Amino acid sequence: MRKTLKEIAQLIQGEVIGDGSIVITGVSGIKEALAGDITFLANAKYAPLLATTAASAIIISKDTELPKACAVIRTENPSLAFARVISLIAPAEIKHYKGIHPSVVLGKDVKLGKDVAIGPYVVIGDNAQVGDKTVIYPGCFIGQDTKIGASALIYSNVSVRERVSIGNNVIIHSGTVIGSDGFGFIEVSGKHHKIPQVGTVEIGDDVEIGANVTIDRARFDKTVIGRGTKIDNLVQIAHNVVIGQDCLIVAQVGISGSTVIGNNVILAGQAGLVGHITVGDNAIVTAQSGVSKSIPAGAIMSGYPARPFQENQKAHAYVHNLPKLFDTVKELKKKIEELEAKLEGK
Amino acid sequence: MRKTLKEIAQLIQGEVIGDGSIVITGVSGIKEALAGDITFLANAKYAPLLATTAASAIIISKDTELPKACAVIRTENPSLAFARVISLIAPAEIKHYKGIHPSVVLGKDVKLGKDVAIGPYVVIGDNAQVGDKTVIYPGCFIGQDTKIGASALIYSNVSVRERVSIGNNVIIHSGTVIGSDGFGFIEVSGKHHKIPQVGTVEIGDDVEIGANVTIDRARFDKTVIGRGTKIDNLVQIAHNVVIGQDCLIVAQVGISGSTVIGNNVILAGQAGLVGHITVGDNAIVTAQSGVSKSIPAGAIMSGYPARPFQENQKAHAYVHNLPKLFDTVKELKKKIEELEAKLEGK
Amino acid sequence: MRKTLKEIAQLIQGEVIGDGSIVITGVSGIKEALAGDITFLANAKYAPLLATTAASAIIISKDTELPKACAVIRTENPSLAFARVISLIAPAEIKHYKGIHPSVVLGKDVKLGKDVAIGPYVVIGDNAQVGDKTVIYPGCFIGQDTKIGASALIYSNVSVRERVSIGNNVIIHSGTVIGSDGFGFIEVSGKHHKIPQVGTVEIGDDVEIGANVTIDRARFDKTVIGRGTKIDNLVQIAHNVVIGQDCLIVAQVGISGSTVIGNNVILAGQAGLVGHITVGDNAIVTAQSGVSKSIPAGAIMSGYPARPFQENQKAHAYVHNLPKLFDTVKELKKKIEELEAKLEGK
Repeated sequence: MRKTLKEIAQLIQGEVIGDGSIVITGVSGIKEALAGDITFLANAKYAPLLATTAASAIIISKDTELPKACAVIRTENPSLAFARVISLIAPAEIKHYKGIHPSVVLGKDVKLGKDVAIGPYVVIGDNAQVGDKTVIYPGCFIGQDTKIGASALIYSNVSVRERVSIGNNVIIHSGTVIGSDGFGFIEVSGKHHKIPQVGTVEIGDDVEIGANVTIDRARFDKTVIGRGTKIDNLVQIAHNVVIGQDCLIVAQVGISGSTVIGNNVILAGQAGLVGHITVGDNAIVTAQSGVSKSIPAGAIMSGYPARPFQENQKAHAYVHNLPKLFDTVKELKKKIEELEAKLEGK
Repeated sequence: MRKTLKEIAQLIQGEVIGDGSIVITGVSGIKEALAGDITFLANAKYAPLLATTAASAIIISKDTELPKACAVIRTENPSLAFARVISLIAPAEIKHYKGIHPSVVLGKDVKLGKDVAIGPYVVIGDNAQVGDKTVIYPGCFIGQDTKIGASALIYSNVSVRERVSIGNNVIIHSGTVIGSDGFGFIEVSGKHHKIPQVGTVEIGDDVEIGANVTIDRARFDKTVIGRGTKIDNLVQIAHNVVIGQDCLIVAQVGISGSTVIGNNVILAGQAGLVGHITVGDNAIVTAQSGVSKSIPAGAIMSGYPARPFQENQKAHAYVHNLPKLFDTVKELKKKIEELEAKLEGK
Repeated sequence: MRKTLKEIAQLIQGEVIGDGSIVITGVSGIKEALAGDITFLANAKYAPLLATTAASAIIISKDTELPKACAVIRTENPSLAFARVISLIAPAEIKHYKGIHPSVVLGKDVKLGKDVAIGPYVVIGDNAQVGDKTVIYPGCFIGQDTKIGASALIYSNVSVRERVSIGNNVIIHSGTVIGSDGFGFIEVSGKHHKIPQVGTVEIGDDVEIGANVTIDRARFDKTVIGRGTKIDNLVQIAHNVVIGQDCLIVAQVGISGSTVIGNNVILAGQAGLVGHITVGDNAIVTAQSGVSKSIPAGAIMSGYPARPFQENQKAHAYVHNLPKLFDTVKELKKKIEELEAKLEGK
């Protein structure tokens, strides 16, 4: 994106205060913004950041006090306006594939929508469907009866097994595997017998899935990733997991089988969750935590085994003060011995 | 699977007690079973679960008391009978590839068994062998001199490097890499020089390997996965690791170089093991544990650094009670001061 | 490699002491060496290992005392000589691809150097460049405008996105993804909007990257892997991370966005680093540690949250001694009660 502030203001029907000729080259959150970025302020609690942000311009509401540091666009609804600005930014430097490469192997009765683009050496199984404007990069495998929505973007060497359902506007990065068998075995006389995993995976609209992620199919029924949820690289999602909407699942997280996660949940990097638990809406699990029990809505959990963040912090503080405690107890012991000696001596 | 209980009983030569006309649609462990499932009871210690299982039918021995909740098949050996039932269940909805796709690139002197099926864009190196009835999905790479047994199933985009040996009935899920170089370097004057990794990997019969797993080849000699061991997604197995038979290695576990693991070992999710240690038969390592020393047979290890489960639980309990201890010590200090004052006062 | 000790001595212009006719088949560090290996001693502190190494031969300096256990090559500079020996060892058993397979799909204006080898079903985007003698295995995807240096080795099913820069002598193992989008979103009214990730990745000369690694492209600017750094399998490197030279990043490590790592740093297996911190030169992070703050040069950090190794060890020792402390406090309490009773009784 290279647009003047004035051009952006016109697109979102806002009012420029400051230099409308400055060139905006990116979007960012108010904390992370750099020179050239436009950002926004929607929540009054972040107002102090107006004084320190490095952004070149900021979208604010009509009743927010003007910052001194940067130019401004005033508008009724900064959140909505900013969302529009983001959607205007075409990642211009990526030229995706166009058309269906002659090497693409299509099974029987595959249905391709309008303006679908499929790169070389993609293989699509019988009865699969691909929606309008979806782009599939080279080397992908799409199994039989799998449905991919419209305007999806699937990067190279992705594997999607049979009967999986993927929504609209989904982005899947390279090397990711969707619909592999769940890890299900029954031990009979010391040997592990495979339990057939005949369910599937359902991925909602607007989901983004990182590189080399694994999402297993359900035993029966389906593993679900809810609309708008974003998944980082190398995440493991086991069979029958159900994840709600608008969650953030950071890199290398592992979620065990049949665990159910609410909406707007954040699981930070390398966290692990056991199976068969529930995580309430808006809960946060901090990095590397190990969650062994269900978590109520809104809770912030930390440590291993995970407990409320404050409690975990306190426990760390207590452990940190152990050397002093050992010293104190040693002193008390000595004093008691002195007292005993005194009493004896009398 | 859709079979009546009566049909199943005939196949395993058992006796139905209850409604033989009910339709069984799946198999499961007694704890996890759902309506429609058949399960089994072989170990008397699980007998209480007979009263609570949600299974529609259960295979029991002739001397087990009849449960009230569900129909029953009585047989001499429930374990053996149940193993047969599992093998009867064809995962009917997966139609694998048939025949050799014309795009498959075969090196010199490749030997393919009977009824081998290889999907589009698979590349197989010189002198490689593929056993009867093995199925290889699109986009796989099989290196030179690699041998794959009979009735193996290799999903899309798997990479198996040169001179690897894979047994019969092995399942490998998409994106997995077998035979990549071990992580071996020698530091000379601050620079890391690569140690050639010229060994290989040997994978026993009946092994299942999840998606996006990495199993490195040995420096010399071989990295070994024993017969019947099951490996979940995103597991890392370093060079020269030797894993015994019938182990369960859960998702995101990492095993460092040259570590030797016995039979029937369970490594739970995200556990990590240092190199050059041994883990005895039937040992269990709980989730996220960090194992820094060898583990005796049958031990259950937990925490970081991993120690016996009970001990680790106690340590957690002690830490949990630290606030009380700090308070107690504070009180004792006060009392001692009072005692001192009293004695002084005299 | 199969060379006599005498042949090796000639190549590095050293003097054989002992049996020059023994056959050397590998190189190794002095600790890990096995029969058939040649190793070296450059640092006097490892001199005691001369007595115990299983190596068949060792390269030492002219003033080092001769070991009894094995043959020797004496030379001015053992480190330099040994580095030359390593480079002499051709991993003879791997026959890489030769020539450009007719199935390779080349975009417009792709520039291939001399003696480039590209296996079947590789796809290379417009304007990409591949340097002399580089080998690319089957099923790889190389995006538009990406530059790969000379003598690089890229194994099967690797995905390198657009505009990435890869140096000379780089090795990338199978399934690895380079240049996937960073995990960057802005929350607007409860929904996560994608921040375009229009930066790139720059990988220096002599870097080795394991299997199924993920290295995200920068938001703007670039994610950097410095010359000579070695990365193990399943490592996650987030957007805008900068890693210095000659680092070792062990399997399953995760490094969050914008973190800057110095030279010669070691991050052991499964360690996790938060974003926006710096790690000084020569620092070491032990396995499974969670680093939440910047680390000074040379520090050894351990635990969660990571702190200096010694301190962390002490904390573990204190926790280990907690049962005794609880007992001691119980005893002291009893004694105080006795003292109180005595004083009361008077």
